[in-house]
Amino acid sequence: MKIGFIGLGVMGKPMAKHLVEAGHDVVVYNRSRPSMDELAATGAVAADNLAQVGQTDIVITMLPDSPDVEAVLFHEEGVASTLQPGAVVIDCSTISPQAAGVIGEQLAAAQVDFVDAPVSGGEAGAVNGALAIMMGGDEETVARAQDVLGVFAAAMAHVGPIGSGQLVKAANQMLVAGNIALVAEALSLLQRTDVDVPAAVDVLNGGLASSQVLKAKGPKMLARDFTPGFRLDLHYKDLLIALAACEQAGVAVPIAGMTTQLVQAMRAAGDGGQDHGALIKAVERLSGIPPHKT
Amino acid sequence: MKIGFIGLGVMGKPMAKHLVEAGHDVVVYNRSRPSMDELAATGAVAADNLAQVGQTDIVITMLPDSPDVEAVLFHEEGVASTLQPGAVVIDCSTISPQAAGVIGEQLAAAQVDFVDAPVSGGEAGAVNGALAIMMGGDEETVARAQDVLGVFAAAMAHVGPIGSGQLVKAANQMLVAGNIALVAEALSLLQRTDVDVPAAVDVLNGGLASSQVLKAKGPKMLARDFTPGFRLDLHYKDLLIALAACEQAGVAVPIAGMTTQLVQAMRAAGDGGQDHGALIKAVERLSGIPPHKT
Repeated sequence: MKIGFIGLGVMGKPMAKHLVEAGHDVVVYNRSRPSMDELAATGAVAADNLAQVGQTDIVITMLPDSPDVEAVLFHEEGVASTLQPGAVVIDCSTISPQAAGVIGEQLAAAQVDFVDAPVSGGEAGAVNGALAIMMGGDEETVARAQDVLGVFAAAMAHVGPIGSGQLVKAANQMLVAGNIALVAEALSLLQRTDVDVPAAVDVLNGGLASSQVLKAKGPKMLARDFTPGFRLDLHYKDLLIALAACEQAGVAVPIAGMTTQLVQAMRAAGDGGQDHGALIKAVERLSGIPPHKT
Repeated sequence: MKIGFIGLGVMGKPMAKHLVEAGHDVVVYNRSRPSMDELAATGAVAADNLAQVGQTDIVITMLPDSPDVEAVLFHEEGVASTLQPGAVVIDCSTISPQAAGVIGEQLAAAQVDFVDAPVSGGEAGAVNGALAIMMGGDEETVARAQDVLGVFAAAMAHVGPIGSGQLVKAANQMLVAGNIALVAEALSLLQRTDVDVPAAVDVLNGGLASSQVLKAKGPKMLARDFTPGFRLDLHYKDLLIALAACEQAGVAVPIAGMTTQLVQAMRAAGDGGQDHGALIKAVERLSGIPPHKT
């Protein structure tokens, strides 16, 4: 299969590598050159321009936000200028469900199929080929996408029509951020008592309070290791997408709304580049308490 | 071992049964008679009064709130009136950490040891002997408690001095209620879109958004099965204990605070007797949207 891949960032680079290793002909494009050269060294073709990426069967985009995806596809000399009818575009970026719908319509007008397929699992998931992928689109196109994305997925689900993948990713980001905020509050309480906090985290993970956030982020929050991982700036962007989706659906979400404001507080304090586990600092600042040393 | 057990409610009855089945001599006491008769039929001794329960080596209490525990122990003809020096009281109720501290001091004056050992896991955990138990007290007394409580525990941890078990339970109840509120918001969003919600819940449980609440309560919330389980009235009581503990520790907890208000909204609307998963109704009411039918 001839596959185009646009966006060789923290996530995109390892995802594209998995495709090359699986034996596909992969044409890669990135704004800056070094990542392209790195991929070329593993057997990919470094494209000179976006139009060249469009001369493939399937194009995968992995970019920061909606305008980035729209630009690479629909810019005058973008991917869509050379895509042939019957080709498939798979967007693995996290963008707004509505933007995904509009992109789908524009591509359909050129007889190009579209799947929104945002991923969850972070850099580790991308490197280990263990991402969770939530796909929106028609049955047949999702099946074609699934064959390709499988090389870097641990879990894949077809969750509805175009835009549905993004809606489920929005829900995912609400749950993750809210869980981090809750764990931050619980740990902030326990750290200011005589409790043996690591022992407490263990027993909490033995019952209904257990969560993947408590397991994966809890120990890092206790060790105050806030190296990203997933940056608060990006999580904030995803939360704004989620809140807009909730507005569109007519659902007020007080917990996700409050959580978003705590993330915004972190950005206001200059900590937007830290891992989302750093949210515990917002809880501490709010009460004017110094960072807890373990 | 001769064990006294006070409080044969939804949790206490199966816990006491496990002790009888393990071969202990168990003396039980309950405000109403039928549960005592039921336990007597399995081999326990039904006590005529609280003083009789005090004529044992270890007394376990499993009661609704702090005043109930204080009353059975320190009432004029209560348990403490007959407890011998060297005996141990283990309180498995969920009460305030400060009340646990005061009880511990009062018992210590009579040379009786004390462990606060609140449990997590609900009725199913009690029946299946699979509770998570968080214990506060001195090393030696906790070790004695552990030998006895093991018959109905899947996980046990010594988390610090007297009161620490209650502090960890407070954190547990903040995490569980907050997680339920978050899942309620996420499901309320997804149910008002074209998303295949059960497929979405599956893929969400494959990544960082995964939690025991999403796994155990999510399907019941989708099926609108709000049979308790754990009643919102009780969770509200536990959240007030947690918020007081946070106040005491000097930590503001906006997410747990907002969650508590959603639980209070459910009680105001007359739904306090329903399972805590019914919190999804508060999210729906807030936006004036009718209950979602699956």
